[in-house]
Amino acid sequence: MIRAGIVGGTGYTGVELLRILALHPEVEVAVVTSRTDAGTRVDVAYPSLRGVIDVVFSVPDVEELVGCDVVFFATPNGTAMQMTEALLEQKAKVIDLSADFRFKDAKEWSKWYGMEHACPDLLAEAVYGLPEFNREAVKKARLVANPGCYPTSVQLGFLPLLEKSFVDVSHLIADVKSGVSGAGRKAELAYLMSETGESFKAYAASGHRHLPEIVQGLQAAAGNAVNLTFVPHLLPMIRGIHATLYAQLSPNNASLEEIQALYEQRYAHEPFVDVLALGLHPDTRNVKGSNRCQLALHQPQGGLTIVVLSVIDNLVKGAAGQAVQNMNLMFGFPEDQGLLTLALYP
Amino acid sequence: MIRAGIVGGTGYTGVELLRILALHPEVEVAVVTSRTDAGTRVDVAYPSLRGVIDVVFSVPDVEELVGCDVVFFATPNGTAMQMTEALLEQKAKVIDLSADFRFKDAKEWSKWYGMEHACPDLLAEAVYGLPEFNREAVKKARLVANPGCYPTSVQLGFLPLLEKSFVDVSHLIADVKSGVSGAGRKAELAYLMSETGESFKAYAASGHRHLPEIVQGLQAAAGNAVNLTFVPHLLPMIRGIHATLYAQLSPNNASLEEIQALYEQRYAHEPFVDVLALGLHPDTRNVKGSNRCQLALHQPQGGLTIVVLSVIDNLVKGAAGQAVQNMNLMFGFPEDQGLLTLALYP
Amino acid sequence: MIRAGIVGGTGYTGVELLRILALHPEVEVAVVTSRTDAGTRVDVAYPSLRGVIDVVFSVPDVEELVGCDVVFFATPNGTAMQMTEALLEQKAKVIDLSADFRFKDAKEWSKWYGMEHACPDLLAEAVYGLPEFNREAVKKARLVANPGCYPTSVQLGFLPLLEKSFVDVSHLIADVKSGVSGAGRKAELAYLMSETGESFKAYAASGHRHLPEIVQGLQAAAGNAVNLTFVPHLLPMIRGIHATLYAQLSPNNASLEEIQALYEQRYAHEPFVDVLALGLHPDTRNVKGSNRCQLALHQPQGGLTIVVLSVIDNLVKGAAGQAVQNMNLMFGFPEDQGLLTLALYP
Amino acid sequence: MIRAGIVGGTGYTGVELLRILALHPEVEVAVVTSRTDAGTRVDVAYPSLRGVIDVVFSVPDVEELVGCDVVFFATPNGTAMQMTEALLEQKAKVIDLSADFRFKDAKEWSKWYGMEHACPDLLAEAVYGLPEFNREAVKKARLVANPGCYPTSVQLGFLPLLEKSFVDVSHLIADVKSGVSGAGRKAELAYLMSETGESFKAYAASGHRHLPEIVQGLQAAAGNAVNLTFVPHLLPMIRGIHATLYAQLSPNNASLEEIQALYEQRYAHEPFVDVLALGLHPDTRNVKGSNRCQLALHQPQGGLTIVVLSVIDNLVKGAAGQAVQNMNLMFGFPEDQGLLTLALYP
Repeated sequence: MIRAGIVGGTGYTGVELLRILALHPEVEVAVVTSRTDAGTRVDVAYPSLRGVIDVVFSVPDVEELVGCDVVFFATPNGTAMQMTEALLEQKAKVIDLSADFRFKDAKEWSKWYGMEHACPDLLAEAVYGLPEFNREAVKKARLVANPGCYPTSVQLGFLPLLEKSFVDVSHLIADVKSGVSGAGRKAELAYLMSETGESFKAYAASGHRHLPEIVQGLQAAAGNAVNLTFVPHLLPMIRGIHATLYAQLSPNNASLEEIQALYEQRYAHEPFVDVLALGLHPDTRNVKGSNRCQLALHQPQGGLTIVVLSVIDNLVKGAAGQAVQNMNLMFGFPEDQGLLTLALYP
Repeated sequence: MIRAGIVGGTGYTGVELLRILALHPEVEVAVVTSRTDAGTRVDVAYPSLRGVIDVVFSVPDVEELVGCDVVFFATPNGTAMQMTEALLEQKAKVIDLSADFRFKDAKEWSKWYGMEHACPDLLAEAVYGLPEFNREAVKKARLVANPGCYPTSVQLGFLPLLEKSFVDVSHLIADVKSGVSGAGRKAELAYLMSETGESFKAYAASGHRHLPEIVQGLQAAAGNAVNLTFVPHLLPMIRGIHATLYAQLSPNNASLEEIQALYEQRYAHEPFVDVLALGLHPDTRNVKGSNRCQLALHQPQGGLTIVVLSVIDNLVKGAAGQAVQNMNLMFGFPEDQGLLTLALYP
Repeated sequence: MIRAGIVGGTGYTGVELLRILALHPEVEVAVVTSRTDAGTRVDVAYPSLRGVIDVVFSVPDVEELVGCDVVFFATPNGTAMQMTEALLEQKAKVIDLSADFRFKDAKEWSKWYGMEHACPDLLAEAVYGLPEFNREAVKKARLVANPGCYPTSVQLGFLPLLEKSFVDVSHLIADVKSGVSGAGRKAELAYLMSETGESFKAYAASGHRHLPEIVQGLQAAAGNAVNLTFVPHLLPMIRGIHATLYAQLSPNNASLEEIQALYEQRYAHEPFVDVLALGLHPDTRNVKGSNRCQLALHQPQGGLTIVVLSVIDNLVKGAAGQAVQNMNLMFGFPEDQGLLTLALYP
Repeated sequence: MIRAGIVGGTGYTGVELLRILALHPEVEVAVVTSRTDAGTRVDVAYPSLRGVIDVVFSVPDVEELVGCDVVFFATPNGTAMQMTEALLEQKAKVIDLSADFRFKDAKEWSKWYGMEHACPDLLAEAVYGLPEFNREAVKKARLVANPGCYPTSVQLGFLPLLEKSFVDVSHLIADVKSGVSGAGRKAELAYLMSETGESFKAYAASGHRHLPEIVQGLQAAAGNAVNLTFVPHLLPMIRGIHATLYAQLSPNNASLEEIQALYEQRYAHEPFVDVLALGLHPDTRNVKGSNRCQLALHQPQGGLTIVVLSVIDNLVKGAAGQAVQNMNLMFGFPEDQGLLTLALYP
């Protein structure tokens, strides 16, 4: 039994961590912080947790987190980097669900996130927590940068093609659609039901913060520079990401059947990546509430373009679930412990 | 470990049973029948179940169910009554999620369901499976009639008031709203997304089949005839029922605080009924995917009308979850086994 | 051609006024104010209006509104009462869509709205703008208090019963459900898509500001004190209100057919109230985007309870459409001018 | 005043035609056919039309349509081609909203639609009714093939780039998302609210019937063979299409500003195509219920990929609205007559 702390427990990522950890047999949720809700019982803010979480929100100070074996940051960008060093000194392991430790390059980070990085030295140590690519490093890590939701769906979809150089990396396209919970629990007009319900749009088509994170991951897989066009869209629903990925097959290209075999083999032992049979199309509903990524492959009209469809729940495999998967690896628990919940259908 | 059969596994109630039973430590799902999908793998029809259910749909015959310790009927009305007798003879216990065994009076049943009852003798034996009212009888039952979704939400909301005669039973009102999954998985125009999305309406305001079921239950609690006006409505969402219940306080009426105390005491030891503090309003989201009923009490303007708000997930506490709760009681398992899943928020 | 000003043009009521007035043949939209958006083109804030509104938001000062023949207030409560006197002096007619002039009693208003009324003298002059009840007074009014959305749906549903004393007025119930646009365009957590989508709840069950407004209107119709229990609910959709109204028939009660005849006759010449045939249930979709109220009557099990179903679009008949209907009456235009748009189905 | 007939008035396209034509000052809706609803009043099937359509559904026979000046087919594919010849002989003009006359090549048509074409001779005469490309031909046409919804959104988005050869036509991508009303009013499980609500998926990624129609149109614009990858997706909402289009700029490529200028100039006199300023993203909500297409251009990271965003309402500019626009052209009415309705926001 380990003691866990959650910094930033009033956002959707925070409450999703609570949902998962509350039933995890090896974890006691000891501390949940929230600057705005300090002093309030967690289950008053989240009545869905009545009966399983007996904790009061505390202020987000390092002292409150003394004695935690693991601390999750479910905070806006810029918070985790202020507290991580002190927590590591206290021998806590840190899993940051924000973007603070996702880039290797502090300057690049500053450019996209608009502030100086508070502890650039830790960027080198931080392990990018995509278990399907970095499992061994995660196991040994003190500090894990949990991937973003878009980056998880895109990387899992492209990885096998890039690792085997089956496609032209100078010309990748990711047309990705996300439910509104991906925008977080922020009181902004843009995310009101009256603004986002029954409608659909692209946003940040000229440049989104997740682009460099995705490119960094794809380049690590390809061993090469890659060029990616990434257009995110906002879906009129709450949970779920669907990435539609387009790549051009390399000259002596593989057949669709060979690519299908490649994907099945690449992910054969992955507990949370599921390759569908040829001809199918995954539905985000298939993974709602679960830690699974489902993939499917298509080759329209038998041409040179390969299409990969990739779905995840943005709050689970795209955030809290993957964070718990990383925690399990870091503490030597079974990788799927606490993560077996099935998707809610319908 | 018991062997379970599910008759009618292609509806929403059937797949919800599969979602719950697949992770129940004491149950092996041995047989799942479907007339339309016989021969197909269950996880082809329901990709959310890939990896946890390794069963092929079979035809719904009694022979297919030989060896099952428990058989669930998640079928249209009129099917369970054809097969139950044979299954009981085979020593299977039966939990019927349809309406076939919910009434004590076969004639009344025929009137509302438009067919002759095939085994009226079993109506006397069948136990109405609302554990909060009938727990001891359920424990001993061979045949349980699992309550309807509307009846569950309304009965749990009214029970304490009726048992203590706090209100005028000649004048009860239940204004109830249900998500569209309550209509089942039927290819009908009325339940298309284009017809039910972004809109709201009442239906069957002049008389709905769940009315006599609710009245039968309320009368058992009140020990008296009750008069109920029941108007169901269709919500533009998938899961969830919200009952808004209105009753007139009896002359030497109790205060709101006394009624609140009554509810808290009545349900103090119920694992799946949760009474909120005064002033609160339960949200169906609080119980989405969970087996819980949440209740709250109001007395508008301190007048003579008491308002009870009652929410459940129609597919869980209103169907499959309650069925598993009944199974747990019938087989001596912990009542909450397999039912601890927390609600999915947001 | 008259010149219209809109104070508070950035809320949903304001933009709905713009949608309607932009195509009204007798109206030029001359001024649209918005404190937050002053200086911005209206069609930049609302791209749906590109090509039909060539106005820049101005600051909400009386001087900006000089020369307007009519001024609509689509502002939060407490704004219209600060500016109305000056506008009336400038010979503008005022239609207030907020609550500032809806009550006759300034003290009652202060109790529910939490501030002193700025011009209690005008309360006597203000005409409550429900044309179906107050048409002649509206025609002569300088100042119209446009009814709230809930009050419109409830009053139109109850009026005939109360005017004819067919029901027991000591015991009326209004169980009303509204789409989220009724909450306005405010950046609050409670109205995020992730909070209100796919869920349903009651709110303010112990007391809501629209209660005294409804009671005032019902009493005017009944000529008597009435007792009403009013419970509002929040629907997971954008537009539409559905009121489910319950009343007890008086002793020598009318038959359902007589009541149906009463409703059909009462509203026979109303352009915007439509009584459906017996047995039907109106769908809020039927009136989405239109200025119509649809009503239907039911008498469950032929008992003493009469159920009235009433639907409107909260932003049209419940706000901006009714305001334009009032404007038409005040200026002698055909009552339905600019209001013939049909509901958007599906 | 002309007399219009609608064959297939019970689908969403049919009722949308009714919504528009009912208020068109030059049109009397004389005949509405429906095989399934013959004998029923149109406004019983569609209560949103009460008061404006006084017609009873008739059987879909040519004799019923005698005397119509224009006949719209809002039927499943394969119906219009059976009746068109006879109607043209009666001097009616025909506007077919199905796919029967969209291809020039009868064999290609048979391949995608799975039946022999009944009147291949008329394919040469039929004019493809995209006014922005074929206006003059539409004006003279007896028979117009109204474009599909996906093809309208994609062609309007790509046209200027192809006409000016600004991009590499061997490599176009259209990632398109549609609301569920695009699937029509059919009682199929796949379009139930419980199946399509709160979820998102691609479909027909390996080949969709609209592909050859789009390619035919793009080739006419480019004057060359084009290669297009087209992946349609199903949105959890009712109305709206959003096309995200990707193309590679040709070597001596234009700047984004030049392309923006090209689009603005190309569509400067189009009443129903609206090019947004650089940096913006159109929302399908902007055009809900209106006949408008909104476009926006992006060049992510200033690279070689140009992204065009294109939104329409699939039932208006993607079907019934465009059909009325074509009718206006064919009969010499103002092109925008009856089509000025503004989008419903929110």
